[in-house]
Amino acid sequence: MEKLEELFEHIASRVNVNLKPMGIDVRPLLENAIPRERHMLYYAFYALTTDHPLSFKFTNSNLAGTYFLGKTSVDRSVLYKSDLRGDELKSKGDIVEFNGVKTKLFYDEVIRVINSFLVKTLVHNHSKNPEIPEVFRILNTVAMHFSNIHGTTCEGVYLGPFATVDLSVMHNCVVGDFSYVQAGDLSRVTIEPGRVWVKSDIFEFNYTYPEGVVEKYVKLDENGKLTGKFIEYVDDFKDDFIPIYSTVQPEQLDGIPEGAYVSPYAVIKGECKIGKNALIAQRAHVEDSFIGEGANAQENCYIKNSTYDGFNVTAHGGKVIHTHAGKNVFVGFNSFLHGTEEYPITVGKDSIVMPHTIIDAEEPIEIPENSAVWGYVTKKSDLETQCVSLDDLSKATDVTLGNATFTGDGKAFVDAFRHRIEHIREENGAYFDGSEKTRGHAQKTQDACFNILQPFQSGPEKGMYPTMTIGE
Amino acid sequence: MEKLEELFEHIASRVNVNLKPMGIDVRPLLENAIPRERHMLYYAFYALTTDHPLSFKFTNSNLAGTYFLGKTSVDRSVLYKSDLRGDELKSKGDIVEFNGVKTKLFYDEVIRVINSFLVKTLVHNHSKNPEIPEVFRILNTVAMHFSNIHGTTCEGVYLGPFATVDLSVMHNCVVGDFSYVQAGDLSRVTIEPGRVWVKSDIFEFNYTYPEGVVEKYVKLDENGKLTGKFIEYVDDFKDDFIPIYSTVQPEQLDGIPEGAYVSPYAVIKGECKIGKNALIAQRAHVEDSFIGEGANAQENCYIKNSTYDGFNVTAHGGKVIHTHAGKNVFVGFNSFLHGTEEYPITVGKDSIVMPHTIIDAEEPIEIPENSAVWGYVTKKSDLETQCVSLDDLSKATDVTLGNATFTGDGKAFVDAFRHRIEHIREENGAYFDGSEKTRGHAQKTQDACFNILQPFQSGPEKGMYPTMTIGE
Repeated sequence: MEKLEELFEHIASRVNVNLKPMGIDVRPLLENAIPRERHMLYYAFYALTTDHPLSFKFTNSNLAGTYFLGKTSVDRSVLYKSDLRGDELKSKGDIVEFNGVKTKLFYDEVIRVINSFLVKTLVHNHSKNPEIPEVFRILNTVAMHFSNIHGTTCEGVYLGPFATVDLSVMHNCVVGDFSYVQAGDLSRVTIEPGRVWVKSDIFEFNYTYPEGVVEKYVKLDENGKLTGKFIEYVDDFKDDFIPIYSTVQPEQLDGIPEGAYVSPYAVIKGECKIGKNALIAQRAHVEDSFIGEGANAQENCYIKNSTYDGFNVTAHGGKVIHTHAGKNVFVGFNSFLHGTEEYPITVGKDSIVMPHTIIDAEEPIEIPENSAVWGYVTKKSDLETQCVSLDDLSKATDVTLGNATFTGDGKAFVDAFRHRIEHIREENGAYFDGSEKTRGHAQKTQDACFNILQPFQSGPEKGMYPTMTIGE
Repeated sequence: MEKLEELFEHIASRVNVNLKPMGIDVRPLLENAIPRERHMLYYAFYALTTDHPLSFKFTNSNLAGTYFLGKTSVDRSVLYKSDLRGDELKSKGDIVEFNGVKTKLFYDEVIRVINSFLVKTLVHNHSKNPEIPEVFRILNTVAMHFSNIHGTTCEGVYLGPFATVDLSVMHNCVVGDFSYVQAGDLSRVTIEPGRVWVKSDIFEFNYTYPEGVVEKYVKLDENGKLTGKFIEYVDDFKDDFIPIYSTVQPEQLDGIPEGAYVSPYAVIKGECKIGKNALIAQRAHVEDSFIGEGANAQENCYIKNSTYDGFNVTAHGGKVIHTHAGKNVFVGFNSFLHGTEEYPITVGKDSIVMPHTIIDAEEPIEIPENSAVWGYVTKKSDLETQCVSLDDLSKATDVTLGNATFTGDGKAFVDAFRHRIEHIREENGAYFDGSEKTRGHAQKTQDACFNILQPFQSGPEKGMYPTMTIGE
């Protein structure tokens, strides 16, 4: 295992060099978070389809349990049960625009991970990267459990557990536990835990969780041990994934309607109904629920005892329990909608649950239609300061409501959200009508098969994956 | 599936160009032998160990169900449920000697398959190839079901089902059903079905099956459909392999003694006992049998209701039923020892069952110790012309016995056999005592894990495997 030990040391040193200004030492986190033998137990798998560009290159890395789709290269990195999806990468010749300046892609875009350590991290593209649009880069980065990385120049970054860096450029920054940032260049910034921050040139939204709340849900000790309600909740479903990950070709479910896709690496348990053009991604867990037409459950979603009326989007890591979501409801990254049989949650149609929202119901909670909700909600009365009508927000310029502040162009903010949600539905194929134009992930992934990669089991290379090039 | 169809056409044309002088057209055999959808159903797997050189390159090929170990490259070929083992390839700098002339390997030796179609073919190295010792080549070759290819320059060759070309150089030749040849350059030769031919500079053994016998056991029609007792026998065990090939990490059996190895891709069924340093290779099937110390069952062996006293070798494709084999007994390639409860077979210690022997017992059959047996035996009386004492054979120069003739140096012939059997035992690790020097396949393959490769499932590439380079 010498090589794997050297790799941990190498990554720690590279990340620490970059994070020195922030006064953080990732070495103990990185070296202790996952017991070594687990890096050998799980296999990596890459999806093979004719609809996605195929090109993988893996060198000097451990890829335990990691899923790959599309063009990816990994060097000197440890990817543990992560999910790298390159199915929205741009192509050679595509024109991209940043702040009104246009440029054309010289090569096909590729996800390139170097000197990084990702634990159960979801990496999805559709990048907004003005630096090198050909490269979706993750460099010298440590991302802890259930973090999300979207649209990066992600260099020298530490992400705490359940943190999200969205559409982001960052350099040498620390993003605290369960923080969500969509704020561009964050060089030499430390984001405190439980902050939700959306910033653009024309608007800014800011919310910080009340003191003492985040720790109840997410707590990482200095040796990388994760506790709290989130991990307790998802750990209960771990065993459901074992049979799926032990089989070369997991069985396809019967009764999946036309245009819909349930990944063979998703769990569908109990009484479920899946609507037309719905998409249940790999690593999603759906139990005793109704997923309506064009709705989706993205990676690391856990949906239980819930009803989706249709065209719903559950972003990566959303957990939705005893909840009725009306049509078009959006649940943002890593949100936790924890209803119970006694205290169910209802979200009215067209509403937006902001990323990193916790609704942990201590009484029945009803979110009105066409609203935005955020922050920490346990009682109806919390909605007074954590929920607004989208129509009202559209007219706003400056609002302070509880721990949240909004400044800037309210209409632009709401439109940006709506536009993005619509984009997600289109990309997922929610409106598929048989035409090529309406095909999305749900349809393109239908004929995927999975190639399964394992590491050396003994000797100095124990735990390392062989150098491998696929597709070119 | 356009690409796969083109590939069939391409291979057929290349092989036919070479086999024109022999008047054979392989196209219908090659195009019809395997239903197209089967080429998509099965996955290829390569073994990853730190004891074997790692380097695979696959381009423009279908690899359905094929197993790879060691350095291999495959281009423009269809390998169907075949087995390519590069674990005895030579290394850069090794000195090889041919007819007294020595030469040094410039590169590591690699198995290279080009423009070929192999069905359930066993390819194993330890080559005797004076042409390019760096390349174990299989070029423009069609090999049908359960054929064996060893030590080649195998160019422009057709092998019928259950045929074996051993330690061989060949060019543009046809080897009939169930023929065994170990005879060097066979350019423009057609070997009739059921011939067993061993030829060197100093001895020659020849046996041809009586008319009408081979067809009962092996019959291939012009469209590649295989019938006969051999395929009927092995088809009965097909289902036993299904669970093994559906699991990412088949379970290791308990109670395997130190130094022994049972491949996770072998079947052990009923009451079996496996001795110390024994080796049960992938695709071997062992049922209700005792496999003694240092004994082995190589690929495609089927051993049932039998006892091996120890240090036995069952070469590739040997089928052994209701047989008691004494110590050191060797069963050659594709031999069929079909005893029954009523009519068991006994083979005395140190005896050699020649390759491609059929003992289909119609009464109890007993092979004395220290004997060679060959050909077609159903009754005791058949042994009179098909079995000799190895001591007698050692003293012989010219012998004609039934359909068999032997000419040349009997002692050299017996010594060559014994030397080779001993080599097999050593290579397999039958004498492992904990020292590095005595380690063999049984010990080196202990920590193997398997990487699993699947083809495209749709589009023009349907059935083709992606281009892939592993290990360099």
